[in-house]
Amino acid sequence: MRVVGVDPGLTRCGLAAVEGAPGRRAQLLGATVVRTAPDATLAQRLCSLEAQIEEFVDSHRPDQIAVEAVFSQHNTATIIGTAQASGVALLVGGRRALPTATHTPTEVKAGVTGSGRADKQQVARMVTSILGLSAPPRPVDATDALALALAHLWQAPVLARRRLAGARR
Amino acid sequence: MRVVGVDPGLTRCGLAAVEGAPGRRAQLLGATVVRTAPDATLAQRLCSLEAQIEEFVDSHRPDQIAVEAVFSQHNTATIIGTAQASGVALLVGGRRALPTATHTPTEVKAGVTGSGRADKQQVARMVTSILGLSAPPRPVDATDALALALAHLWQAPVLARRRLAGARR
Repeated sequence: MRVVGVDPGLTRCGLAAVEGAPGRRAQLLGATVVRTAPDATLAQRLCSLEAQIEEFVDSHRPDQIAVEAVFSQHNTATIIGTAQASGVALLVGGRRALPTATHTPTEVKAGVTGSGRADKQQVARMVTSILGLSAPPRPVDATDALALALAHLWQAPVLARRRLAGARR
Repeated sequence: MRVVGVDPGLTRCGLAAVEGAPGRRAQLLGATVVRTAPDATLAQRLCSLEAQIEEFVDSHRPDQIAVEAVFSQHNTATIIGTAQASGVALLVGGRRALPTATHTPTEVKAGVTGSGRADKQQVARMVTSILGLSAPPRPVDATDALALALAHLWQAPVLARRRLAGARR
């Protein structure tokens, strides 16, 4: 299964693609950070972000998309832009009829390191190790998107069973 | 000039279209409230909202789109969904290369009633009077979108001059 992870943001948006199968090491397919011009209008920035997310998704052809959940506890100065960016990512997935899910940062950290309180260095070390890389993945800003994609890769079968059982997330 | 006003929301999204020209009474072209199913996934809801906003915009062919600005002071329980809905509206405008602007509720109330503290009844009365209607516009939920479109209609020439002068909003 291929998963694209999106760490949403208007100024910087992390994108990562991983592939995994039961009993095999997860593989890094690609990771990048896309940006939009801070001096463009909000509508132009959202359009530019949409085009860049679509390009990444269409070039990696994921089976599912995972987007970091936005909370009202986030930095209130940037929360509106972050929420709008996450909406664009979900829209890109929804339009392609790809299953989409949101995961909280705590779920992602717990999924990758075993602890919901892991710091950035621990997450980066685990992502490097899980993917069998010789050095931390570049760009560093894409680490959260990678961790998200990996956490989703493992949780997706569980979530699918839960959905079949009639529960709703 | 034709303006579509969007009062963004995931559960209820107000849409209104008005037309105006200097020295003439503004005309109501259409107003509605579109909804998305609360039991659908977030991606499905955003896609459904996008399709409904696109349908309204394409049937009214506005020259500009006005979207109510979202603030972190809003109800924090719904702020994420409201921000995502506003992002979808801005995206629909941006993709059509229509000028888009956001206005705060205070700006809209001040524009329509002369007071930024006007209550819902005062706004509804002024909207009814401005448009020369015999009764308050229906659906009632679309009143804010109508007030927004009217406020934008009057502010647009001012904003255009400001943009020409090199200032940025």
